[in-house]
Amino acid sequence: MIRAGIIGATGYAGNELVRLIMGHPETELAFLASKTYEGEHYASIYRNFTEIVELDCVYGELPELVKKADVIFTATPQGFLAGCLNAGLLKECIFIDLSADYRLKDPAVYEKWYGISHKSPELLPEAVYGLTEINRDKIKKTRLVANPGCYTTCSILTAYPLVKDKLIDPSTLIINAMSGVSGAGRGAKTANLFCEVNENAKAYGVTTHRHTPEIEEQLGIAFGGEVRVNFTPHLIPINRGILVTATADLTEGAGEKEIREAYEKYYGEEFFIRLPEPGTCPESRYVEGSNFTDISFKTDERTNRVVLMGTLDNLVKGAAGQAVQNMNLVFGLDERTGLTGLPMVP
Amino acid sequence: MIRAGIIGATGYAGNELVRLIMGHPETELAFLASKTYEGEHYASIYRNFTEIVELDCVYGELPELVKKADVIFTATPQGFLAGCLNAGLLKECIFIDLSADYRLKDPAVYEKWYGISHKSPELLPEAVYGLTEINRDKIKKTRLVANPGCYTTCSILTAYPLVKDKLIDPSTLIINAMSGVSGAGRGAKTANLFCEVNENAKAYGVTTHRHTPEIEEQLGIAFGGEVRVNFTPHLIPINRGILVTATADLTEGAGEKEIREAYEKYYGEEFFIRLPEPGTCPESRYVEGSNFTDISFKTDERTNRVVLMGTLDNLVKGAAGQAVQNMNLVFGLDERTGLTGLPMVP
Amino acid sequence: MIRAGIIGATGYAGNELVRLIMGHPETELAFLASKTYEGEHYASIYRNFTEIVELDCVYGELPELVKKADVIFTATPQGFLAGCLNAGLLKECIFIDLSADYRLKDPAVYEKWYGISHKSPELLPEAVYGLTEINRDKIKKTRLVANPGCYTTCSILTAYPLVKDKLIDPSTLIINAMSGVSGAGRGAKTANLFCEVNENAKAYGVTTHRHTPEIEEQLGIAFGGEVRVNFTPHLIPINRGILVTATADLTEGAGEKEIREAYEKYYGEEFFIRLPEPGTCPESRYVEGSNFTDISFKTDERTNRVVLMGTLDNLVKGAAGQAVQNMNLVFGLDERTGLTGLPMVP
Amino acid sequence: MIRAGIIGATGYAGNELVRLIMGHPETELAFLASKTYEGEHYASIYRNFTEIVELDCVYGELPELVKKADVIFTATPQGFLAGCLNAGLLKECIFIDLSADYRLKDPAVYEKWYGISHKSPELLPEAVYGLTEINRDKIKKTRLVANPGCYTTCSILTAYPLVKDKLIDPSTLIINAMSGVSGAGRGAKTANLFCEVNENAKAYGVTTHRHTPEIEEQLGIAFGGEVRVNFTPHLIPINRGILVTATADLTEGAGEKEIREAYEKYYGEEFFIRLPEPGTCPESRYVEGSNFTDISFKTDERTNRVVLMGTLDNLVKGAAGQAVQNMNLVFGLDERTGLTGLPMVP
Repeated sequence: MIRAGIIGATGYAGNELVRLIMGHPETELAFLASKTYEGEHYASIYRNFTEIVELDCVYGELPELVKKADVIFTATPQGFLAGCLNAGLLKECIFIDLSADYRLKDPAVYEKWYGISHKSPELLPEAVYGLTEINRDKIKKTRLVANPGCYTTCSILTAYPLVKDKLIDPSTLIINAMSGVSGAGRGAKTANLFCEVNENAKAYGVTTHRHTPEIEEQLGIAFGGEVRVNFTPHLIPINRGILVTATADLTEGAGEKEIREAYEKYYGEEFFIRLPEPGTCPESRYVEGSNFTDISFKTDERTNRVVLMGTLDNLVKGAAGQAVQNMNLVFGLDERTGLTGLPMVP
Repeated sequence: MIRAGIIGATGYAGNELVRLIMGHPETELAFLASKTYEGEHYASIYRNFTEIVELDCVYGELPELVKKADVIFTATPQGFLAGCLNAGLLKECIFIDLSADYRLKDPAVYEKWYGISHKSPELLPEAVYGLTEINRDKIKKTRLVANPGCYTTCSILTAYPLVKDKLIDPSTLIINAMSGVSGAGRGAKTANLFCEVNENAKAYGVTTHRHTPEIEEQLGIAFGGEVRVNFTPHLIPINRGILVTATADLTEGAGEKEIREAYEKYYGEEFFIRLPEPGTCPESRYVEGSNFTDISFKTDERTNRVVLMGTLDNLVKGAAGQAVQNMNLVFGLDERTGLTGLPMVP
Repeated sequence: MIRAGIIGATGYAGNELVRLIMGHPETELAFLASKTYEGEHYASIYRNFTEIVELDCVYGELPELVKKADVIFTATPQGFLAGCLNAGLLKECIFIDLSADYRLKDPAVYEKWYGISHKSPELLPEAVYGLTEINRDKIKKTRLVANPGCYTTCSILTAYPLVKDKLIDPSTLIINAMSGVSGAGRGAKTANLFCEVNENAKAYGVTTHRHTPEIEEQLGIAFGGEVRVNFTPHLIPINRGILVTATADLTEGAGEKEIREAYEKYYGEEFFIRLPEPGTCPESRYVEGSNFTDISFKTDERTNRVVLMGTLDNLVKGAAGQAVQNMNLVFGLDERTGLTGLPMVP
Repeated sequence: MIRAGIIGATGYAGNELVRLIMGHPETELAFLASKTYEGEHYASIYRNFTEIVELDCVYGELPELVKKADVIFTATPQGFLAGCLNAGLLKECIFIDLSADYRLKDPAVYEKWYGISHKSPELLPEAVYGLTEINRDKIKKTRLVANPGCYTTCSILTAYPLVKDKLIDPSTLIINAMSGVSGAGRGAKTANLFCEVNENAKAYGVTTHRHTPEIEEQLGIAFGGEVRVNFTPHLIPINRGILVTATADLTEGAGEKEIREAYEKYYGEEFFIRLPEPGTCPESRYVEGSNFTDISFKTDERTNRVVLMGTLDNLVKGAAGQAVQNMNLVFGLDERTGLTGLPMVP
């Protein structure tokens, strides 16, 4: 059995990791680390695990924790892992980081968008960006996975084949997205109170959201050149779910047939990416609780544009699920192991 | 592999049966029957099953359908199964009926509360009321399971130990319950539109709800005498979940200790019934998506009463989950098979 | 114009007071006091008032504030007003207190349920319990209104005529209630985050909720003897609304006709209490945003009980609306002034 | 008093018209027409009006109805009014049509997008597009107001000053919008059931939504040339509210200062258009229940684009409120009459 430890276990992504690991046939929980809840029974915080999870929350330094686990998931604030990880610790344990610390290759970009200096830039070359369907081979060989953000996973997967095959002009790519509230975390903030979010819709982080450079970097790699996008996230009153709607100009010769073929080419064999029937719009509820991403599109002859639509569960494919998918790869398992739970409707 | 057919597959309980059976290691889908959607691809109706479920909806007569399956689940309107089932068909196939047709032993009571005459009362003696934790041994031997209602399962399980051991006076039992909207089905009714339900709370079926006689019959058996209750259901804006709050006078000598012991005695070993820590109130979200029922209580010395609280997911333990739990028993499997998915929070 | 000051203006009840006072033809805002937000533009906190409310939040001591207003509404934590009000200040200004400080006549009961000692018990005789429809004449003459709680207003109004006229046995009265989340305030607590409340139902404060003694005291006055009830509140995912469902044994000779007559007798002429058609169940959405309370009932011959149902908007009739209704009375205005906004559906 | 009749009174827009007219000091309800609910008490359908609205639903032909009212609001399916209105009837009564029948000047465009032929194209020249802030003077003089759609009002108001003053290139304008479910009407459709909408987000009508030509026509007039946009609407689980997020390339010389000045120039004096502080994102809850539209923006130097954001209540400014605003103009009243109800939060 793989011993899996979680640091930051009491956030929503941490809780989702616990759910997935408890249902994973080859993995067992090694420890649940939480500074805030040290000493408390985990199942007293997340009572969904009553009589299921027996562990108490612990707190410990990384050098001590690496001895107890084969893999450590960090669902921690930006800067935490970069501040305590080093090459020596990385030899003792696999790390799958759900924060942004190792996602951007250039520490200057990290510092610009996150406002903190990177404490272990020497590890960046070793880190692999954990967008499984795109970086699968590299992930298999790494010890440090930079697990992508939720908006990012959805945005990149939705646009990737068209950018890669130059069916759209990436300089015209406009990405709008909406997210469920669990993406904002479990911190006690007024802005995330039920009465502040329910019966409301708003954009936020307009022109400044931190997932922007991550999208740009990865799509830039796919395109083979710089990509700049407008990414506008919105908060809507649902617990889980990301829905991305992206619009871009079609390049010469690109049409419905070519786009369909591109999606088939890149995703036709992917278990966790589904391509619903032409003409259907993905709905976040149809992936809720699962590791699936559903992607569809509609071309518009009137404007010579295409509208791309993608959806995933921000806590699964957008966080814990993709983290487990990556863990499976690193440990040589079938990447679907422990991730075959189907979406729950309604 | 057990071949499982579902009649009424396109309702919410039917959809949940599909989800559970797709995740069940010993069962496969035999057919998905639906009159309304005959010929349509099931996954085009429930797009959570895109690329997962390949079957189309069929329509057929029972004598034809029994040949294709080892077990048939009927998630159908009241009166349907009673109108077409007979002893001969019952020899060919196991039936697990999610409707009310075989729940009440007295056809006159059925006719009074449901307003339809019972078409196959001769099968009633054979039917076993499928409240697994209470009727486990009988269920193992039957070919016709009358799967309980959602409110009923929650109400009975919550009150059963105290009624059985006479710790409360059942003539004082007041049961209030609230339900998610999926309990009202997928029919296109104005009253169940989003805008009619969202931001609203209401009681309904006051003094006349059809789950009342079911509760009374089963608690009466436990008590060893007639039981009459006031059962008041409410509709609240959540997709899934039943929460029962029941109040009753304590009998002489009954207190917190005795009640705790009674719950331990009957449920201490039950996997699907959880008894959260003293002082905690069950919350519907902590069982959502799972087959668990969480039960707790609080005694009140000021009034010499006890307040009982129970919660379950109406589509799982309140319908499809308990149906699969019963199927497992009938086919000699561990009753937890295919039902170990954990609750999903948030 | 009546100059109205609000202390605790940035809570949800405070915000609702601002909305109502801005629409009140005889009143103007004198000041908006808030310790936390001192110096901030009120409309930057509650952006519903963009370009409407020009005031900034202030902070000041009571002796200073009384000079600026004819009436002060205190939507403050328990203990605040009792800790700073005195007979001298009460001569300078009318006080309408939305906290519990002056609701209970016996300071010992206050201390037992609220866990704090009462700092100005000498003012209790002067305070009038502001349940307008029941204490109208006393309210007109007081300078200190103890505005009732939201659960309390709904529970008492629903049961009052039957308790008063002895149509039910108050020793059998079981009150269940559910509330929207705004009743829990705007404090940044994890338990009130969207993801903790949405898709959830739970009871809380079982046997210990602080509105219990308030209900008991007022129904006891109506009954002419001690009343003890089990009051069980629940939290459901709506912004606004209280729904009360109460059950009690009918007394000899009491039936549907007598109950209907009792409601007509006490409420037939009341503008803000509506008695929907027999057989209809009140729904919280039908009073949302308004000062109405809708009350209905259903008798049950099987159990000789009656089920009572009442609903109101916790921020209007359950807080700010009733406060304005009381202010109108104190200042000799038609009590409906500024309160004729109709419920908003959906 | 102005006698106002409503045809299609039992839809959500009809209900909202009733709420506004009941609160309008110069108007009274003449009749409430509904084919489906003919003969039923209006307040039995919309129980928010219990003891408030005494009218029953009627059904009648237009020549008969015009005699009973000074103004008729039609909140009816597309094609209804165009099929029965004529010049003679228009002489007897003012018409404010909430359907799309008279919004598009070219009947061919109407037929293309709506799939029905226009039955009274001869009235199109007389119809004034009722976007009050833009067409105020024309509205004052007409007898036939084509009240704009909800998405349209929000989209046009948000983009208008920048298109008009050529601060953005309209050929790059991408409009995304999300809507509350009341915009889908009160028809009993499975797709609008609570369980189909709650906890879900989806795009719909992608590239084909009928509000597209309306947006294009009006922005084209402002621009002085053809405008083609991609308009992508989304359905989210809220009752009310439209939020528009639009992106466009800035033209040479256009920046934050110029955009701010353009908004000030066109909307600085408008009561119902609010321009929140720079840097704030409009939220739908801050206009809920009111006739306000809140508009803001953010420029992006990285991409030389601007992100525009606008929000309104689809049933008020997006339907009934703007209809009353237009009625006020036609009848020579202050356009704010009866529309000063403030947004309700939460």
